[in-house]
Amino acid sequence: MSYCIASYRCYDSKADFHKKASSIAIGMTVGSWTELPAAKQQSMKKHLGEVISVDVHESEQGERYADIQIAYPDANFSSDIPALLITVFGKISMDGQIKLTNLQFSDTFLKAFTGPKFGIEGVRRILGIPERPLLMSIFKSVIGHDLDELTRQFTAQALGGVDLIKDDEILFENDLTPIEKRVAACRKAADDVQAQTGKKVLYAANLTGHTFHLKEQAKKAIDSGANALLLNVLAYGYDVLHELARDPEINIPIMAHPSLAGAYYPSPYYGISASVLLGQLMRIAGADLVLFPSPYGSVVMPKEENMAIREQLVSPELPFRHSFPVPSAGIHPGLVPLILKDFGNEVIINAGGGIHGHPEGASAGGKAFQQAIDAALAGTSLADYAAQGHHELRQALELWGGER
Amino acid sequence: MSYCIASYRCYDSKADFHKKASSIAIGMTVGSWTELPAAKQQSMKKHLGEVISVDVHESEQGERYADIQIAYPDANFSSDIPALLITVFGKISMDGQIKLTNLQFSDTFLKAFTGPKFGIEGVRRILGIPERPLLMSIFKSVIGHDLDELTRQFTAQALGGVDLIKDDEILFENDLTPIEKRVAACRKAADDVQAQTGKKVLYAANLTGHTFHLKEQAKKAIDSGANALLLNVLAYGYDVLHELARDPEINIPIMAHPSLAGAYYPSPYYGISASVLLGQLMRIAGADLVLFPSPYGSVVMPKEENMAIREQLVSPELPFRHSFPVPSAGIHPGLVPLILKDFGNEVIINAGGGIHGHPEGASAGGKAFQQAIDAALAGTSLADYAAQGHHELRQALELWGGER
Repeated sequence: MSYCIASYRCYDSKADFHKKASSIAIGMTVGSWTELPAAKQQSMKKHLGEVISVDVHESEQGERYADIQIAYPDANFSSDIPALLITVFGKISMDGQIKLTNLQFSDTFLKAFTGPKFGIEGVRRILGIPERPLLMSIFKSVIGHDLDELTRQFTAQALGGVDLIKDDEILFENDLTPIEKRVAACRKAADDVQAQTGKKVLYAANLTGHTFHLKEQAKKAIDSGANALLLNVLAYGYDVLHELARDPEINIPIMAHPSLAGAYYPSPYYGISASVLLGQLMRIAGADLVLFPSPYGSVVMPKEENMAIREQLVSPELPFRHSFPVPSAGIHPGLVPLILKDFGNEVIINAGGGIHGHPEGASAGGKAFQQAIDAALAGTSLADYAAQGHHELRQALELWGGER
Repeated sequence: MSYCIASYRCYDSKADFHKKASSIAIGMTVGSWTELPAAKQQSMKKHLGEVISVDVHESEQGERYADIQIAYPDANFSSDIPALLITVFGKISMDGQIKLTNLQFSDTFLKAFTGPKFGIEGVRRILGIPERPLLMSIFKSVIGHDLDELTRQFTAQALGGVDLIKDDEILFENDLTPIEKRVAACRKAADDVQAQTGKKVLYAANLTGHTFHLKEQAKKAIDSGANALLLNVLAYGYDVLHELARDPEINIPIMAHPSLAGAYYPSPYYGISASVLLGQLMRIAGADLVLFPSPYGSVVMPKEENMAIREQLVSPELPFRHSFPVPSAGIHPGLVPLILKDFGNEVIINAGGGIHGHPEGASAGGKAFQQAIDAALAGTSLADYAAQGHHELRQALELWGGER
């Protein structure tokens, strides 16, 4: 028999956690058990959830909690993410202090998934950059700007040598810059820069609007030359990402934005862990690149949670391509050595203010990051490298500070 | 100019909440403001978010918090729920202790919505029950059961005089009882019961599977005679509910299940309030009936949160039909007077165990509820009414107790 296993952390000052675990295992599967006649139990056994483990602990603050693992028979639910989430956390999410902390997917379940179409390797192949960390920049302000302004911003960013440029996630379909025109204009700008510098840029256009039109929007963007897409996954559900990612006609990388994720992960008592939300589920649904709040910058996530997301995005346990980790928010060149120490080279350095806020503008901002990456890879300190005539980096370090 | 307004509660022991509010208003709209040249400010003003109010408080536990209201120009986002949620709570959900507590929709935004197709009145009209509270029962165990068993359960429930029967939300597409066969079998059972008793029953079939197939599934169910649908809205996103509800070919009531809602609402510090999640958003997206955890039973929600959901489902502030409130979980006949006191007659009494667990079975369980409703409407105490020869009610009261 085949099961998907969910792990939970439950807080309760006096609950019998073994009883709670068993009530979940029965209540979320066959409904009732001990009352069933023996013959019925026989036929229902293959649908019965199973308690795998119950570990009761006390926190440093004296709070009593348990880590509980429950196995759910694959026979009970269809192989899609909505069915899995409803099965393992639907009703019980509302039953006291309980947080979904991990998932283990069965081979049966995973058979319905193919994961990222490109993944780290595929994105590297498209860009022709086999090893070094990639560099991405985000449009600064986008709302209310017309195509000329967006193109100007795009060109400035691209000239700074970034590898990817992404739309702001709050740029929705609008009259000034509808996706097909935006993509066409930015692709032209990208081609112009490439003709000048030889450097290719991926531009992730934000896919927005009504759910049942997203595929059409994606194809419109592709017809206009899109070479990547951005999706606010949590506003649409993981299954939409899955459906887009497995569509053979959508043959460009998809970047998952963590927008709204803070509604789920920060409480220790409720919700879903960031490593499940932004790690496991994004990867099985097929995100090639996954953004998440970094532990370094302005929107802070604890370091161990960040590492747990990364772990899930590149873990060999899942039989899929790796998703590119993109720790985001508040990143400036001085943080590059720290990011590479934590993430290794399989990371995308992603900055908005840290590029646009450079004293000499966005192109210099991109160059400062490139220099910081070069320095870190060469094992040279940023300060030394800056002193060796890399003035864009020097200015960035003066403004934002260096390694912490 | 036209705005949608979001309210937040933010906790922080020392933050300058006015500064925080202003950084949200600017950061989630135009991106930067004070640095902009005056001419640019002029042209961007229509896109700038506005701080409406900042009220700083201290909780009884001595925690410092602020209630903040920000107005977001409609010009910034498309009129759909994903765009609204990303705009008002996308990135900032991840920025410290902040909970989205209320939404005010502009007329411009609401123009893209039509709300429930049937609502309370429409459901009453279909059932031919103009005034009294309705009674719904939930299948007991469904997983692993075949069509015969489901039909047997359906008939027993329908014979108890319930007005609606809903699928369990964990019943997904499966070989034994695929939606079109399940609907056909249950509709036949419903017709048989109606021929016997004259009583009509709505059966809400659970719509599951991949997002982009849901419309097809819905139409398959309708072709098989479905007269209502159930949707795990939070697993698919509100926009999917909206798209189903506004499809003229899906001309039957849609029931919204709160599954997964506990991942968002219970923490005071993070997430989205239940009145937004299960009240405002469900109604504008078009749910005719909305289930939510009751304050009475096994899965408990505080009373004031429950009343806040109800308030949003029937508030005259929204220009839409009212959604039927369905407080659920742990409901037994003894609670009926309490429910009617809190909700009035515009409520659906919904029970699973409280019907199937009746000593004489599901039909007697339904009758006990009917009797409890009759008693409450007549202003008679349940105990007195039970003593007047209503033995199903008497048995229920003996088993589960009476009014609290």
